[in-house]
Amino acid sequence: MMAKKYKIGILGSTGYTGASLAAILVKHPNIEIKFLGSQQYAGKKFTEIYPEHQSLAEYSCVNADNKFLDSLSAKDIDLIFFATPNGIACKHSPSLIEKNISVIDLSADYRFRDLSVYEKWYGFKRDDHKINEQAIYGLVEFKRDEIKKLASKNKAVLIGNPGCYTTSAILALGPALEYFTKSKTIKANSIIIDGKSGISGAGRKAELELLFAELNDSCSPYKLGNTHRHGPELEMFFSEISGEKIELSFSPHLIPMSKGLLTTSYIEFNEDIGEAKLREIYNKKYSGEKFIKVLEPDIYPQTKWAVGSNNAFIQISYDSRLKRATITCAIDNLIKGAAGQAVQNMNLVFGLEEGLALI
Amino acid sequence: MMAKKYKIGILGSTGYTGASLAAILVKHPNIEIKFLGSQQYAGKKFTEIYPEHQSLAEYSCVNADNKFLDSLSAKDIDLIFFATPNGIACKHSPSLIEKNISVIDLSADYRFRDLSVYEKWYGFKRDDHKINEQAIYGLVEFKRDEIKKLASKNKAVLIGNPGCYTTSAILALGPALEYFTKSKTIKANSIIIDGKSGISGAGRKAELELLFAELNDSCSPYKLGNTHRHGPELEMFFSEISGEKIELSFSPHLIPMSKGLLTTSYIEFNEDIGEAKLREIYNKKYSGEKFIKVLEPDIYPQTKWAVGSNNAFIQISYDSRLKRATITCAIDNLIKGAAGQAVQNMNLVFGLEEGLALI
Amino acid sequence: MMAKKYKIGILGSTGYTGASLAAILVKHPNIEIKFLGSQQYAGKKFTEIYPEHQSLAEYSCVNADNKFLDSLSAKDIDLIFFATPNGIACKHSPSLIEKNISVIDLSADYRFRDLSVYEKWYGFKRDDHKINEQAIYGLVEFKRDEIKKLASKNKAVLIGNPGCYTTSAILALGPALEYFTKSKTIKANSIIIDGKSGISGAGRKAELELLFAELNDSCSPYKLGNTHRHGPELEMFFSEISGEKIELSFSPHLIPMSKGLLTTSYIEFNEDIGEAKLREIYNKKYSGEKFIKVLEPDIYPQTKWAVGSNNAFIQISYDSRLKRATITCAIDNLIKGAAGQAVQNMNLVFGLEEGLALI
Amino acid sequence: MMAKKYKIGILGSTGYTGASLAAILVKHPNIEIKFLGSQQYAGKKFTEIYPEHQSLAEYSCVNADNKFLDSLSAKDIDLIFFATPNGIACKHSPSLIEKNISVIDLSADYRFRDLSVYEKWYGFKRDDHKINEQAIYGLVEFKRDEIKKLASKNKAVLIGNPGCYTTSAILALGPALEYFTKSKTIKANSIIIDGKSGISGAGRKAELELLFAELNDSCSPYKLGNTHRHGPELEMFFSEISGEKIELSFSPHLIPMSKGLLTTSYIEFNEDIGEAKLREIYNKKYSGEKFIKVLEPDIYPQTKWAVGSNNAFIQISYDSRLKRATITCAIDNLIKGAAGQAVQNMNLVFGLEEGLALI
Repeated sequence: MMAKKYKIGILGSTGYTGASLAAILVKHPNIEIKFLGSQQYAGKKFTEIYPEHQSLAEYSCVNADNKFLDSLSAKDIDLIFFATPNGIACKHSPSLIEKNISVIDLSADYRFRDLSVYEKWYGFKRDDHKINEQAIYGLVEFKRDEIKKLASKNKAVLIGNPGCYTTSAILALGPALEYFTKSKTIKANSIIIDGKSGISGAGRKAELELLFAELNDSCSPYKLGNTHRHGPELEMFFSEISGEKIELSFSPHLIPMSKGLLTTSYIEFNEDIGEAKLREIYNKKYSGEKFIKVLEPDIYPQTKWAVGSNNAFIQISYDSRLKRATITCAIDNLIKGAAGQAVQNMNLVFGLEEGLALI
Repeated sequence: MMAKKYKIGILGSTGYTGASLAAILVKHPNIEIKFLGSQQYAGKKFTEIYPEHQSLAEYSCVNADNKFLDSLSAKDIDLIFFATPNGIACKHSPSLIEKNISVIDLSADYRFRDLSVYEKWYGFKRDDHKINEQAIYGLVEFKRDEIKKLASKNKAVLIGNPGCYTTSAILALGPALEYFTKSKTIKANSIIIDGKSGISGAGRKAELELLFAELNDSCSPYKLGNTHRHGPELEMFFSEISGEKIELSFSPHLIPMSKGLLTTSYIEFNEDIGEAKLREIYNKKYSGEKFIKVLEPDIYPQTKWAVGSNNAFIQISYDSRLKRATITCAIDNLIKGAAGQAVQNMNLVFGLEEGLALI
Repeated sequence: MMAKKYKIGILGSTGYTGASLAAILVKHPNIEIKFLGSQQYAGKKFTEIYPEHQSLAEYSCVNADNKFLDSLSAKDIDLIFFATPNGIACKHSPSLIEKNISVIDLSADYRFRDLSVYEKWYGFKRDDHKINEQAIYGLVEFKRDEIKKLASKNKAVLIGNPGCYTTSAILALGPALEYFTKSKTIKANSIIIDGKSGISGAGRKAELELLFAELNDSCSPYKLGNTHRHGPELEMFFSEISGEKIELSFSPHLIPMSKGLLTTSYIEFNEDIGEAKLREIYNKKYSGEKFIKVLEPDIYPQTKWAVGSNNAFIQISYDSRLKRATITCAIDNLIKGAAGQAVQNMNLVFGLEEGLALI
Repeated sequence: MMAKKYKIGILGSTGYTGASLAAILVKHPNIEIKFLGSQQYAGKKFTEIYPEHQSLAEYSCVNADNKFLDSLSAKDIDLIFFATPNGIACKHSPSLIEKNISVIDLSADYRFRDLSVYEKWYGFKRDDHKINEQAIYGLVEFKRDEIKKLASKNKAVLIGNPGCYTTSAILALGPALEYFTKSKTIKANSIIIDGKSGISGAGRKAELELLFAELNDSCSPYKLGNTHRHGPELEMFFSEISGEKIELSFSPHLIPMSKGLLTTSYIEFNEDIGEAKLREIYNKKYSGEKFIKVLEPDIYPQTKWAVGSNNAFIQISYDSRLKRATITCAIDNLIKGAAGQAVQNMNLVFGLEEGLALI
């Protein structure tokens, strides 16, 4: 028996995230890629832009403009991924959802329930408030049941795929925040997230500050002191799962590597809970998770371990003097931090095995 | 008139730190290098090991063993640098100081006034307690007057040159700690230092985990949760200048770059002091400092700016919601974080212009 | 129906090449890995050494010593890969082949038909002359029929898997040499191969010259002027396929990248054959080849295109003034240059589809 | 007595080459920098663009347009460096030379005596034929006497500073070509130059193909088969010093490093001249040269040895079977390959010690 094939399309397929997504999906046993959208490279063969992705040799890019999207019906396509700049997905999703075509948006458009936060940080006015309410923040390890429930209704689903830094930081701090929600054992506003990202996280843009000769053999922070957009995204999610208003410090850094992302997260407790207790909480939370590896003591995550896979490697360190944990989490910014997690979400939406096509 | 030439020697000159030191000193107008010690390469030309240092082409390495050191008198040599592993300098320094030969130790042997802390963290028993009391922690921007005063007595001086991470973190947090000592405005135990270091910081050792193919295109934390030796060094110094017992979190990371070090330091205040006030404190503290550059707002330090020079680049970011500052500081781990600062100290010891031979 | 599973073992599985091999084979639908040998890490879980290979999480390393190998029979194991240093495979292969266990050796032991060349260049005395005669040099695109024929005899097969540089250079020059054999159009001894390799090509050894801080941001030649062992390997093969004695220049270089290998090969002709003719020869030779991509004019191979796959990317450039072609070929040194090609060979040995488990 | 100060200006000072030039000249005891030209950054402080060059902290960039240049007289300025794109220097030099202001052009405008070659390869029409005849190709180690002679005439001098690849290849092959001119021992058209360059060689341009994420951990050839402009530059010079028409192959490659350049040059002889003879020729040619280091046998040049200095490291390898030498030469592409050599030229023009301000 042939496996059922779901039909999907990707907008923004020639960015680093979109290309990662296409490369995963082309090997997916239940997926048929119907189109790879790219304004910039419309008409070109995909392997002209990315010769490393020979598995996509038969695809050419299409200009998936308004007209093209308007022409689609649920017979043609089951789900569309937006790997586009912010402000694109929110224009097209209302009509797609209405036509019963699901949407997974890898930009920030559907990450915020409170659109005023989005509008403040992203500078766009939005008029899709109604549909935004249906959107789920697709951090699978924390939202799986919600996604499954919605997917089971046989209606189009809208998912806001989390940011790369936020995915790593949520995997690192989420279990503690969830566990201590009621006991209020976590010290309010003690959270600090020091992020280190490979350069592909900045996207594929012809800018001087992204040149090899500018970034090689050097590292640097950027957008410190509550000025990076992943700060409010983290505050939103952590407030939600902890049940109290969380404000935190987030400090991103550029590291001279192509891919990979590490977060070093700090959190204080009101009592000395001990490292053993923390390990117990994390091991329990992640015991059945295919992609989350809680490391044995004294083994620290290296980003290269995660690069190329959907895995996250987590280590828990603890200083009882200060009642402070330092939790590190390494992922591939383009996979678990973007395209891989999007496929995890898609698998859930289609009722497939969650890890299908992911390594 | 010929400039007076002081005579110096370097032990451990073929490590990365020792070689940086030799390369600076050979261009110093008032210094004559009398010997470059190296157990491993004794008898070899220095440029056989480091062809990039052609300015040292006339030097060969000597085995500066006990006998060699015993034979030296203050007529032969004014000052000896130890760029050796921990536990070497403390064996030789008592007799050198007694012979009126000054010592600048780039290892950790003379960084701790309280030797029990050293013994606990470094695992050596020490019997040079008496001479350890005379040692100065050579963080020039905070200890200049003390060093000058001691140097003016025409007696041998013993300086413990600070560690690389500690130098960067002290330059980042020291001014705030000094300023708020009396007012107790700083929140006790809120300090977190997230350090990022180039690989040369790990030394020149044939170990699997230091191989190119292991470290390239990846980053990783190590020794988290109060297990790295620069933690107690920082606590010692910060306790001293703040007048209260400071305990802190220090998290080192290896970054795929040869040189350069960045610290991202977090500190909370009991009241919202404001970014402007902080800038004022730092600008004042460092106004006359040749090597410390406090950056204009929104410009973040890149380690490559500091590499090759004795400069430190500092940025102050502030989140008034959390009353927390994020202070970043980039240095060259081998220069301002080791050899350059040692030369700064040496210049002070000899009563020379502090920045001589440094760029 | 379940696919038939062939049983294999790997010696030297924790070197870079062996680990790549294990990672490919664990995903192979027709292969069961029976053991992963490692003297150094015997008893350790494979993922303790390579956490990036979570697909191998259930494997621990075994010490595959003489006793272990002696105990094996053809019932236990179908084929053994040697990813060991030179001089190991030639000790064990005679008895394995006798027991009807096939061998694919990724070291140099079975690359030379003329053992005196091996003995001269590798410094080992050999007493397995008889079995060496049966060995096939496993450069699949040139030896496929020979391998298939031997494999069809239902007897154990012995394959000497080619070196990384040689694989790339043979793919680059082989078609021209084959084509012009009779016409003698190629200028004798005009061949020059300028090789550029990522650092993993040097193996996983704790040596000073392989440290990150020694190799990063720098490049260098090594073993020039007929002193590198891949020179005689190339001369042997090129002499064989061209039917005349070929002597050539081979110049390897270390490039600051983890993986990937590029050869730039120069060859002169006795007449101006023209670029079009060359393209025609190469396109024809490689038309049915799954892993060989002859690039369109003006597109030059980048090693990253090949890294992670068994693909080779080839470009043909020609200067009619000099009747000289410059042919470039990029591969992954650990895959097409070692482990991937070994799996290609294994697939042929087992009569499986040649590209199985390879991307 | 104060050293005499010559007044110079730099056009294109914020490119990688121009910035290197400014950084060297600001430390020159006999030079006063009168202006740093930059169209793009006019009005900005130089250290806003290059914070690593704190020694230039007092300089701001000026827009050195036509009007500005027209206003200059020989009283204001002794020499102008053009570190501008090709086609700029040839517009301004005639009038500057006429006003008795010397010019050192780091672009290609004055490298070709035969302007038809320039026009063919660079695509500009030129009407400065007359002044082009006076220009000297500033490869100091081969043109020193010529430059000195011209400089002694107290008239403005015009120097075309060589390209980076060409500098390295000429240093590598020049001595052999010079020596064997008469005996015709060199095999015509056997020369092949395989070049490897750090990315800064491509300039500071916001282009996709120069992004970190495109170039990191990968290497690639470009412009093969007589299509790179340094080919005809080499042919011109080698034809000049060898006295016969030389045509050659030049193959440039991009290497993932910021700075540094290596050429691997191949040359065949009509008789087996032997390695010893070659070494003798090179050692003699370069015996008094401050910046050229001919390495002992078996030591291969690493580009990092040269980076940051004006040094060139050369190794000679020889295969007597093929009567072919492989000569490698490592330089800093921005220093000996551009700015450093320009300063060497300038020192000669002003009658100063040739190595002044260079390391």
